[in-house]
Amino acid sequence: MTETERPLIEQACARVVIQFSNFNDKRDYEALCSLFTEDASFARPTDPDNYLNGRDNILAAFRARPNDRITRHLISNIVIDVVDGSHAKGTCYATLFMAPADAEPAMFGVKASASQLIGEFDMDFRLTRDGWKIARQGGRIIFTT
Amino acid sequence: MTETERPLIEQACARVVIQFSNFNDKRDYEALCSLFTEDASFARPTDPDNYLNGRDNILAAFRARPNDRITRHLISNIVIDVVDGSHAKGTCYATLFMAPADAEPAMFGVKASASQLIGEFDMDFRLTRDGWKIARQGGRIIFTT
Amino acid sequence: MTETERPLIEQACARVVIQFSNFNDKRDYEALCSLFTEDASFARPTDPDNYLNGRDNILAAFRARPNDRITRHLISNIVIDVVDGSHAKGTCYATLFMAPADAEPAMFGVKASASQLIGEFDMDFRLTRDGWKIARQGGRIIFTT
Repeated sequence: MTETERPLIEQACARVVIQFSNFNDKRDYEALCSLFTEDASFARPTDPDNYLNGRDNILAAFRARPNDRITRHLISNIVIDVVDGSHAKGTCYATLFMAPADAEPAMFGVKASASQLIGEFDMDFRLTRDGWKIARQGGRIIFTT
Repeated sequence: MTETERPLIEQACARVVIQFSNFNDKRDYEALCSLFTEDASFARPTDPDNYLNGRDNILAAFRARPNDRITRHLISNIVIDVVDGSHAKGTCYATLFMAPADAEPAMFGVKASASQLIGEFDMDFRLTRDGWKIARQGGRIIFTT
Repeated sequence: MTETERPLIEQACARVVIQFSNFNDKRDYEALCSLFTEDASFARPTDPDNYLNGRDNILAAFRARPNDRITRHLISNIVIDVVDGSHAKGTCYATLFMAPADAEPAMFGVKASASQLIGEFDMDFRLTRDGWKIARQGGRIIFTT
């Protein structure tokens, strides 16, 4: 791995971190799960010890979620550590704003639920023939506002 | 376009996205409008169907805004999709904190208005002789807290 | 400095900006202070006119802080301006969520303190034999929520 490769890997993995949350907020779970390796494992920050194994199982779990919320996961503080030319690790903070799907309209948008969650994700990335993918993702909630 | 160009374009456009909000918060509307192409169109997230056309008209509209607020637009989740060597698209989330210009002092800074707005921007970028510029920017508010 | 160097410097310095806050939130003050040049100066956003001089003094000040809070500094809007091949400047926004170390548990994580602080950092960077380091960092609080 050359010193020019490292920042390119950092940038590619940071993009995956953001896409994860953007696809989640769009309820585009196929696109979201295309970010995982086939053998990926994933645990939600609200249930951090319960890892799902395999992209298909992760997809099934996302699809089984009740579709009754509007969400925005605001991602910040992304740091990617390149391990070697085909492995990297990453961390970020996430702030979750939510509202029920039938939330009362506000002057602009809808009224958000009173509480936000501030948490962290940590990820392992692997280079596949389709680019950098999430091989493992976990997380935990730090604060409820 | 080579595979080294793509991340450079992503980075250049992401910088423009952030500068837009930073210049806005500084009330530096000339600098803000220098981020647009001459023929750019722009709609505010709070008035998403009302596009202004032309950099000069956009500048006039920004200058006409009442100068009575302190703002910080916190930008996150930037994703830039490169279309070709001279076109790109982008999205981001924005969280707007505000206070009236005569807000009451807090122990640190001033007391922010009770409500924040969480919204989205979407942009088209074009490469000009002066670098990457915003050719179109729209947006909408998702949540009021 | 070539046009390929500029984005690499921007990326390297942006990473330092984020690491500063991540190490701070982990109370890893040795790692935090390894981000500074030996002759660095630093002022806290809550005490912006009181610059500490020298990495050792900065480390001592961080170590002397009461260790009674959980914090997350959410960093956004990072813009790095490269001055030359060994100097750069940067700005970012920071949103600080806090709770006392003995905060009451919430359904997820702990209950955050009611008020957040939204502020800004500004930094000078210098290239050293150990990479890009913070030579000066200041800041100020804009809003208390």
